[in-house]
Amino acid sequence: MKPLVLHLDFISPYSYLAWTQIDRIASTSGREVQLVPVLFAAMLDSFGTIGPAEVPVKREYTFLDVYRKAKLLGVTLKAPPRHPFAPLISLRAATAFSEPSERRRAVAALYRGAWETGRGVDTPELVVEALNEGGLDGAAAVARASSHEVKAELLAATKGAIARGIFGVPTIVADGEPFWGTDSLPSLEQFLRGEDPITPEIREIVRTTPAGVERKRKQ
Amino acid sequence: MKPLVLHLDFISPYSYLAWTQIDRIASTSGREVQLVPVLFAAMLDSFGTIGPAEVPVKREYTFLDVYRKAKLLGVTLKAPPRHPFAPLISLRAATAFSEPSERRRAVAALYRGAWETGRGVDTPELVVEALNEGGLDGAAAVARASSHEVKAELLAATKGAIARGIFGVPTIVADGEPFWGTDSLPSLEQFLRGEDPITPEIREIVRTTPAGVERKRKQ
Repeated sequence: MKPLVLHLDFISPYSYLAWTQIDRIASTSGREVQLVPVLFAAMLDSFGTIGPAEVPVKREYTFLDVYRKAKLLGVTLKAPPRHPFAPLISLRAATAFSEPSERRRAVAALYRGAWETGRGVDTPELVVEALNEGGLDGAAAVARASSHEVKAELLAATKGAIARGIFGVPTIVADGEPFWGTDSLPSLEQFLRGEDPITPEIREIVRTTPAGVERKRKQ
Repeated sequence: MKPLVLHLDFISPYSYLAWTQIDRIASTSGREVQLVPVLFAAMLDSFGTIGPAEVPVKREYTFLDVYRKAKLLGVTLKAPPRHPFAPLISLRAATAFSEPSERRRAVAALYRGAWETGRGVDTPELVVEALNEGGLDGAAAVARASSHEVKAELLAATKGAIARGIFGVPTIVADGEPFWGTDSLPSLEQFLRGEDPITPEIREIVRTTPAGVERKRKQ
């Protein structure tokens, strides 16, 4: 069975919520989980989209939405001191752990620092602290995080995801099929039960339905 | 008890999905439903956001997502012949029915034409047909739809929603609190049960959390 591939960026509270659910979903369907840190901002750049934190009115709404969804899922949520924050150091630190069980512990520790304790993971000191609390060697990871290899791996993972049409986080890929956002988790579970409604006919309709109108964008 | 105010645009399949759920949610909480047609494109213009149908890769994904969510909800879905389509004639026709029970029948008939039969509602002929099938006088409604009063009412409803910070459809307002998107319906139900987790403290955190970084947008 192919793994469930979770593309994540610690900047996204929705990717935190997806992380809290992925093990349950994977075990129900007998799958492994593969964790792929990616830089969400590069996706926004590449596809010309705008992040929810970049529109003031949407930013406030989104935060309230995240608190509400966390309660529905029974998940602890505490926002970090700054948001959006610079995610590179945390993403590189997670990438620096290539062994799957260590990657998992690093991701758990960094999500805890970003969205559970609310202390933040956007400085080397905070990343070291979060990883140490997770039982890992934070200082060694942060040192590896600035290596050419780790930087290149994060870049390659991000570019690879973009090349496959992944435009946001969290995106979970199952058997080549992307599921984007916390709200797609029930659809992912439906897919894993073999009950996905998407037929070749529906794919064809989606691909070939013409636009009847195009909005003129303001410059 | 204040009504649940559903802001809708027939262009949005998510607003169709919300429409299929709103009566159940309203009756569980003993609320009335108020239906407010608004022009989604004006919200995108006003807030500088981009609709999901405007990014090719997101457009295809979004369509698949809608089919999947429709199946999870047990709702019939058939995409219209063109999408995005020009929604003005359908929105004005719905607006032309000011009496609440007639507005409801008109909205039901137009959603059916847009997303259930898949015939479309983006020409006067299709709107007349959809309304007639719903037992209304389609020709009379389409005639009223081009009046100054109806055009002004749709514009005022849209501007009013934007002024209250509503940036998308569907948005359901309950006691002044907006819930955006099909995926917020469980949060709305949580709110209506009196279990909303949003405290004044969380609102304050959301309002005052500073940005730690700002993405440079490509021109």
